[in-house]
Amino acid sequence: MLRLYDSRLSGNSWKIRILLSQLGLAYERVTLDLQKGETREPAFGQISRFSRVPVLVLDDGRPIVESGAILLHLARGTPYLPDDPYLQAEVMSWLFFEQADLQKAIAIPRVLHLHGLAQERQQDIERLRVDGYAGLEKLDQWLRGRTWLVDTHYTVADLALSAYVSLADQGGYDMTRFAGIRDWLVRVRAQRGWVPLTPEAGQASES
Amino acid sequence: MLRLYDSRLSGNSWKIRILLSQLGLAYERVTLDLQKGETREPAFGQISRFSRVPVLVLDDGRPIVESGAILLHLARGTPYLPDDPYLQAEVMSWLFFEQADLQKAIAIPRVLHLHGLAQERQQDIERLRVDGYAGLEKLDQWLRGRTWLVDTHYTVADLALSAYVSLADQGGYDMTRFAGIRDWLVRVRAQRGWVPLTPEAGQASES
Repeated sequence: MLRLYDSRLSGNSWKIRILLSQLGLAYERVTLDLQKGETREPAFGQISRFSRVPVLVLDDGRPIVESGAILLHLARGTPYLPDDPYLQAEVMSWLFFEQADLQKAIAIPRVLHLHGLAQERQQDIERLRVDGYAGLEKLDQWLRGRTWLVDTHYTVADLALSAYVSLADQGGYDMTRFAGIRDWLVRVRAQRGWVPLTPEAGQASES
Repeated sequence: MLRLYDSRLSGNSWKIRILLSQLGLAYERVTLDLQKGETREPAFGQISRFSRVPVLVLDDGRPIVESGAILLHLARGTPYLPDDPYLQAEVMSWLFFEQADLQKAIAIPRVLHLHGLAQERQQDIERLRVDGYAGLEKLDQWLRGRTWLVDTHYTVADLALSAYVSLADQGGYDMTRFAGIRDWLVRVRAQRGWVPLTPEAGQASES
């Protein structure tokens, strides 16, 4: 059986749980405690050469690291990744953009807010938000007049981009200015098999 | 014919020129001047949704953006990307790691040094170097005792990781501590078809 190493609030790990759910794949979930330093333990370093979650361990025991690589591996041959080489390149370009331009710019302010360090680290947060807003602006422009990021249906590009983007308000981003993103996030969350980050988040969005 | 939009000093564009050379593919090169703002012109925005180089325009006029997506597209079906799905995932995990953890941490200090702004922006540079050294340390650890990043031969993972890493000293990184990286860079540069970033850089390394 597949085994997923994740952490409770990791957006990159959340992406993998969404896709596993959408593909109907059973897996064992091992949730590490980042506060206790469990990703820095040497035994975990043997599984993840970058000492971080997510890691997907295949049936045969081989690990795959980096959320983008895991998503593309799982989606191969399914409706979540087009077979056409050009469309695959389009999907990949969004995944690289997200990791290079959006992920840290959203994740770091979010973690600082969640840990009550936002005031103390205000300067770092503002610097990251300059990059983050620039990336969000490009994403929003692309989505205005389009239903999905690539071609005519939901792919792992929509899945991968929507995760941290949907958490940006937790990092103090004003998302009201991005109408294209807002409407697209509603469509993403309505996809069959989509799961919330935490059970509580699911309850909150239903209430 | 393929057309590559690049800039003279862009490490991400350099990666594409190396692979095109190694694959023996002819292409038209359009070198934009970043200082003149040529990547921010609306006409270029129609080609690159992220308004940056590199962009590879295919024979049929369709553009591919993001260096990782371009490399994977060109390498598909060649010896530079393994066919095996697990090994492909390994290559991709390195490409994502480079874009998320190394590229900006190396490229920004380098640009500031090249533009004579290193002293003025010393604090930003030092902050970026903390991330950059952490990433370089992981890469170096992996390379000690290995010849190539994935499996037993040179792939686009080696190509993609080596570009900015080989430029890190231009951003003030002390690379003498990374013996694994140093030896691997020698092997990468010895690969058939490898080309230097600029003709001058090629002369310098030969002299």
